[in-house]
Amino acid sequence: MDAASRNDRLQVAQLESWVDRFLHTRQDSLALTAALQIEDYGVQPMDDASPPKWHLAHTTWFYETFVVKPWNSAYQPDNPEFEYMFNSYYNGVGTPFPRTKRGSLSRPTVQEVLDYRARVEDQVVKLLDGGCDDELLTRVELGIHHERQHQELIVTDLKFNLGNNPLYPAYCENLVSAESPVELAYVAFAGGLFQVGAPDEGFAFDNERPLHKVHLEGFQLANRLVTNGEYLEFINDHGYERPELWLAEGWDHIDKAGWRAPLYWVCRDGDWFEYQLGGLAQLEAHLPAVHISAHEAVAYATWADARLPTEFEWEVAAAGVEVSGNFSESQRYHPTGQSGESKARIHQLYGDAWEWTSSSYGPYPGYKTLPGTLGEYNGKFMSSQLVLRGGSCATAQSHIRASYRNFFYPPDRWQFSGLRLARNGNG
Amino acid sequence: MDAASRNDRLQVAQLESWVDRFLHTRQDSLALTAALQIEDYGVQPMDDASPPKWHLAHTTWFYETFVVKPWNSAYQPDNPEFEYMFNSYYNGVGTPFPRTKRGSLSRPTVQEVLDYRARVEDQVVKLLDGGCDDELLTRVELGIHHERQHQELIVTDLKFNLGNNPLYPAYCENLVSAESPVELAYVAFAGGLFQVGAPDEGFAFDNERPLHKVHLEGFQLANRLVTNGEYLEFINDHGYERPELWLAEGWDHIDKAGWRAPLYWVCRDGDWFEYQLGGLAQLEAHLPAVHISAHEAVAYATWADARLPTEFEWEVAAAGVEVSGNFSESQRYHPTGQSGESKARIHQLYGDAWEWTSSSYGPYPGYKTLPGTLGEYNGKFMSSQLVLRGGSCATAQSHIRASYRNFFYPPDRWQFSGLRLARNGNG
Amino acid sequence: MDAASRNDRLQVAQLESWVDRFLHTRQDSLALTAALQIEDYGVQPMDDASPPKWHLAHTTWFYETFVVKPWNSAYQPDNPEFEYMFNSYYNGVGTPFPRTKRGSLSRPTVQEVLDYRARVEDQVVKLLDGGCDDELLTRVELGIHHERQHQELIVTDLKFNLGNNPLYPAYCENLVSAESPVELAYVAFAGGLFQVGAPDEGFAFDNERPLHKVHLEGFQLANRLVTNGEYLEFINDHGYERPELWLAEGWDHIDKAGWRAPLYWVCRDGDWFEYQLGGLAQLEAHLPAVHISAHEAVAYATWADARLPTEFEWEVAAAGVEVSGNFSESQRYHPTGQSGESKARIHQLYGDAWEWTSSSYGPYPGYKTLPGTLGEYNGKFMSSQLVLRGGSCATAQSHIRASYRNFFYPPDRWQFSGLRLARNGNG
Amino acid sequence: MDAASRNDRLQVAQLESWVDRFLHTRQDSLALTAALQIEDYGVQPMDDASPPKWHLAHTTWFYETFVVKPWNSAYQPDNPEFEYMFNSYYNGVGTPFPRTKRGSLSRPTVQEVLDYRARVEDQVVKLLDGGCDDELLTRVELGIHHERQHQELIVTDLKFNLGNNPLYPAYCENLVSAESPVELAYVAFAGGLFQVGAPDEGFAFDNERPLHKVHLEGFQLANRLVTNGEYLEFINDHGYERPELWLAEGWDHIDKAGWRAPLYWVCRDGDWFEYQLGGLAQLEAHLPAVHISAHEAVAYATWADARLPTEFEWEVAAAGVEVSGNFSESQRYHPTGQSGESKARIHQLYGDAWEWTSSSYGPYPGYKTLPGTLGEYNGKFMSSQLVLRGGSCATAQSHIRASYRNFFYPPDRWQFSGLRLARNGNG
Repeated sequence: MDAASRNDRLQVAQLESWVDRFLHTRQDSLALTAALQIEDYGVQPMDDASPPKWHLAHTTWFYETFVVKPWNSAYQPDNPEFEYMFNSYYNGVGTPFPRTKRGSLSRPTVQEVLDYRARVEDQVVKLLDGGCDDELLTRVELGIHHERQHQELIVTDLKFNLGNNPLYPAYCENLVSAESPVELAYVAFAGGLFQVGAPDEGFAFDNERPLHKVHLEGFQLANRLVTNGEYLEFINDHGYERPELWLAEGWDHIDKAGWRAPLYWVCRDGDWFEYQLGGLAQLEAHLPAVHISAHEAVAYATWADARLPTEFEWEVAAAGVEVSGNFSESQRYHPTGQSGESKARIHQLYGDAWEWTSSSYGPYPGYKTLPGTLGEYNGKFMSSQLVLRGGSCATAQSHIRASYRNFFYPPDRWQFSGLRLARNGNG
Repeated sequence: MDAASRNDRLQVAQLESWVDRFLHTRQDSLALTAALQIEDYGVQPMDDASPPKWHLAHTTWFYETFVVKPWNSAYQPDNPEFEYMFNSYYNGVGTPFPRTKRGSLSRPTVQEVLDYRARVEDQVVKLLDGGCDDELLTRVELGIHHERQHQELIVTDLKFNLGNNPLYPAYCENLVSAESPVELAYVAFAGGLFQVGAPDEGFAFDNERPLHKVHLEGFQLANRLVTNGEYLEFINDHGYERPELWLAEGWDHIDKAGWRAPLYWVCRDGDWFEYQLGGLAQLEAHLPAVHISAHEAVAYATWADARLPTEFEWEVAAAGVEVSGNFSESQRYHPTGQSGESKARIHQLYGDAWEWTSSSYGPYPGYKTLPGTLGEYNGKFMSSQLVLRGGSCATAQSHIRASYRNFFYPPDRWQFSGLRLARNGNG
Repeated sequence: MDAASRNDRLQVAQLESWVDRFLHTRQDSLALTAALQIEDYGVQPMDDASPPKWHLAHTTWFYETFVVKPWNSAYQPDNPEFEYMFNSYYNGVGTPFPRTKRGSLSRPTVQEVLDYRARVEDQVVKLLDGGCDDELLTRVELGIHHERQHQELIVTDLKFNLGNNPLYPAYCENLVSAESPVELAYVAFAGGLFQVGAPDEGFAFDNERPLHKVHLEGFQLANRLVTNGEYLEFINDHGYERPELWLAEGWDHIDKAGWRAPLYWVCRDGDWFEYQLGGLAQLEAHLPAVHISAHEAVAYATWADARLPTEFEWEVAAAGVEVSGNFSESQRYHPTGQSGESKARIHQLYGDAWEWTSSSYGPYPGYKTLPGTLGEYNGKFMSSQLVLRGGSCATAQSHIRASYRNFFYPPDRWQFSGLRLARNGNG
Repeated sequence: MDAASRNDRLQVAQLESWVDRFLHTRQDSLALTAALQIEDYGVQPMDDASPPKWHLAHTTWFYETFVVKPWNSAYQPDNPEFEYMFNSYYNGVGTPFPRTKRGSLSRPTVQEVLDYRARVEDQVVKLLDGGCDDELLTRVELGIHHERQHQELIVTDLKFNLGNNPLYPAYCENLVSAESPVELAYVAFAGGLFQVGAPDEGFAFDNERPLHKVHLEGFQLANRLVTNGEYLEFINDHGYERPELWLAEGWDHIDKAGWRAPLYWVCRDGDWFEYQLGGLAQLEAHLPAVHISAHEAVAYATWADARLPTEFEWEVAAAGVEVSGNFSESQRYHPTGQSGESKARIHQLYGDAWEWTSSSYGPYPGYKTLPGTLGEYNGKFMSSQLVLRGGSCATAQSHIRASYRNFFYPPDRWQFSGLRLARNGNG
């Protein structure tokens, strides 16, 4: 760790000690699941979505594996099988328990997982209190960001469970509604050579680095996200039945999957409803359209005579914009509308909904993975996925930044994924 | 209902009232699940195995649908969606909730299902107390036998969950072991014309009827079930690598599935273990081999220069034999050995393990399904399955009889299914 | 071979020498393919249907493997790879070339396969001329019957190819049509104890043996096959949309496969057409319904308040009936109608269409497979299949007999499979 | 068409008239298939590879659909079904015949396809002779390039057929071997802002346009392709067994597919062989490694402490380099080695083997598809694929250029795809 990086850490530490940051994040995970029934902790509603209990255990396993065991050679795990059961995908640690079977593990129980959390937390706190080295701090910091990522997944995976249950149970109390949004307009950006990515100092994932230059042509970005009402026009204009609007893979996919609307949209007797984590509600025209796949985003954009932004167009637009918006801290767990503001400004860059970009998820020039097994964290997934930017209503505000790259496969839509339109030219 | 049948019902009723029989069966279901953690109730470890919670709800749905609603037109269900969620396969009631998604239902909670059970039980008891007609009694009786079937499935489905968990949690306290079994010998039966099936009076499933005649050649049946030790010889003699021992479908199946031993057998450093519901234990050579598929049963029998019995050979051998053995009432939940008895007698006909037969599951001559939607109970499954006979350690003693036909697909092996060898001729 | 068997062989030999029988059968295979284009020889239109070229080669491989190589130790195959490429399923000979890839073999060419045929034929003739032993004769006879079976498959597999080609090319010249059939009536048969199966002497497949006794209740059989017109009534009565008519497996299958009519039925603007090997033609109401699966047969029978016959009911009805009808020798390659005959008699027992029975394909009591690798001929397929009886318009007349058991899976329908209804009772 | 473009066309036309260019290309397709047996024309050895006959018909369909029908309203097709049968993926023309069933079409015969070719050719020549407009010329030119693409596919699809046949038949006469190659070295390129893509004038596919600028960091490219000998070292160093070398998708894929070497490599008793279109031959260590997937390319590069080039690095390196090399005109149909040349220069940029890049196949800034149904030509495939550059031994020399973008999915390897290593920095 160089001086700048250490400096940055110290500045953060002035606000909050490492132990506090660590414990604060750990407690946030428990807060997210506090309202659950025991039964909700174990369900894996589809292969890509894990049970909340698994997330609670895996984020603990991460510390146990990458912090506790390397720094405390005397450590004896109470349950040696957990190393296998809660390994997500780190082949360097051994063959992981099959991802698609996570919902089959009724044991350990929720209480046993909570005990496991407490035991490992004690170990980490002891190490932090014991005068730790930089590498240990680096790993704890990574563990904190790792847990933030899984907190978002707890919300989205839980929504997939509850939102596909015929009873549509509510996770939180409030339903979100919205006033008429700011009129759709495009904001122009001049082209040129830009610096993108994360600097070496401060925390960022390896996939945000190194800083590098990209050349962009002039471009325009929509001032806000596409709304449910606008998306409904696309549906009503037979958007799901016109192959010329879709990528070939997308057209095949909606045919096989039978998709005719975003995830969580329900049509009853001609009326549209949407499942929010507060329950099933009449579709709100003025809220952002969310839970759409990249394929749907592309088809909508083509229909709207626009396109998806690239990840760097988004990042250039976000340069200097304050990170604020509708995040998980609001506990709304649903995107909110954008009303009564200037149409000439860019809104909703952060929070509300992840924004699909047309950029495939790949390594930046000079990209280096983390050393050792932690090198499996990001790099090995750099194929066939697209980058999303900006965070969502299920992202922690402290977790997001302009250089942050999220990534999912084009057909994925159980995340809070939405769409900001883009166009060529300087306007 | 004819006079004989009514008579039979009255005789039973002398021993125990209908309300008592009903409530007794209902309580047995709860007793089976009393030791579970809440987490265990919801897991569906494979498509064919349902969560215990689902069994508890579905057996309630059965009464609600076929007893309460038809006999009480004023009945208002608290949860109308349950009609859809807990329908197993009765198309006459509407399209059922997808079978493979039963493990995705974290709601209703276990407590809500218990409340549902209590509400419907109250309704049934009221109807029974109200001077009920024969058809209602017939349906309640069917419901009782239906629940007994699901009690066995609770045990086997739960075993599949726990027995595939890397922690191998115990469901009950005891591990079963055994002394050296009675020496294997064959008991000869003369051929001839025999009457098989269930008489019209008394309870039996439609698939056991009508009584009819079959002609059998002389045959011999082994005096007991094949043991683990014997089965291990088959494995050690490369039984799983010799295609000439297997049916073509079986050979394909073990190749695709990678089977090299019965379900729940675990090999560690050359030593064999078996998961019993009491936990993982050293393989007991003298216990019956159990959790084998029909394909494995056929291969073993071919290797042993024998064959599977037909269902009627079994039934003829069982004629006049008292129904006794190791049933669910023993709460061992594992087959027991057979030792120190006459080798000239047939042992273990009932209980311990279901015995695969070579008979495909089909309709008896003159077979009639139950009227209406209940006609879907048995008849529509009469293709591609084989009959098993005799009950197992997870079957209630009161549930089994000589004419009882269980049926599963040849590759199925999560039931307590074992093998009794047969040979041609009069010995 | 015992004396009776040898006697039987001699009697046949009086009519036709073994060499002549052998060569006659071989020439029939070539006659069947004489009208093909080279392009038609190689197509495998689905996994279960093999290319004509493969059938021509495999029937040659059979002689090479089971006759030439064992009896001529000096024999050197020109193409050693053929042993692998044209092995169907005999694991005793080595791992066969993957069945689903037979259509990928553009080489050897048709001409090379014809050369292979000629070379092996020369070898067989030399052995037959050289004063052969009984076992060699037994194998040649088996080879002849084996080739007859594949001749039928050449026709049905070719039909699947041409009948699914958008051009609907004709294989033969004539289209079959029919007058109004004999009125549907049931013929009653008394129950009792019957002897079924094939005697030891004379040729029969191992699966027809041994002779044994079965007890049947009285039954009735329809006097003819179900016709297209009758089947169309079932369709128009929403037969494919009523789950209560179907076995559970059948209902699932037609749902997944999207079946709404028999194979080769085509609906254009409300008019029904049927592909015959003579081309696409208006559906003939009076012809037998053919190319239906067992699942469709069961649903139709249930709808018609009837059932499928058992294989033994069919065999008892066929006892003493002369083997005559519409076979492959007629070169019509399509079932014909049954008109102007007595309604009190059983018609169409032989030829026209294989008749689905409700009997699962299993071993007769005392069944023994052929010794050695030839034991794989029949026995290993005795699971999950149903027996069909009577032969079809694509069967050679010399190939069929009362005890003959054909077998296919319940969803199969690319064979000429039809339906004769049955009912209980003596009428 | 603007003046520059017209000018360009005229210049080409000075060398060769449009009719001659058209007919020349058409004859090349026939020359490629002249040595085939009729049986070879129809085989579809896997879903992605089409039969040669289909390619011959589809390239004709392309002219019929996009040239003849629009410009000759009186045109009557002899076989209206061909519009459906030989449509590849143009939904604007109607639902295409299922791609995976192309090998099931024994009709039309090869001769009928040749007749179809001749008829449509006559029509095109008549239109070209009749004083055609610019749009017609544009389409004929596209048709010519389209047919060049399918000529390459004829070679690769045929190789997949023959190279998976146990007889390993030869398509051409010569086997390719090689001397020791030039020593591996890296050539450094300075970073900066570069113009990439195709200019508006002259022929290029829509996906190569528009010209645009990209910023590159300094980079180094290997002076030649990776050889078989080098790739064998990777294998012998357990490259296929070390997950840390692979992308997650790649690791999963080789596990499922069982890959342990490039396509067409065969190991017999420890010796390696490679199928070339001239037959099966001992593996030549000095020839380029070919038929590797992008996943294998990435794993090899990681093992070699290098990476894949981006498509723009390749294009910048190719700027000003003459298009010459080992193309289909050489009729070798296999990559050749590179020996005895300066190690400081870049070799083999063109021909021999397509070079995988790390660039996902996407639209250039300002990308526009062709108008109408032809817009489906390229754009709709811009997801999940990677760009390959430079052409191969199966590409026509006239077909390739510096801006040419080929694209396949990361697991694809039946094309002649190889690898040039890249590294960061200016060396």
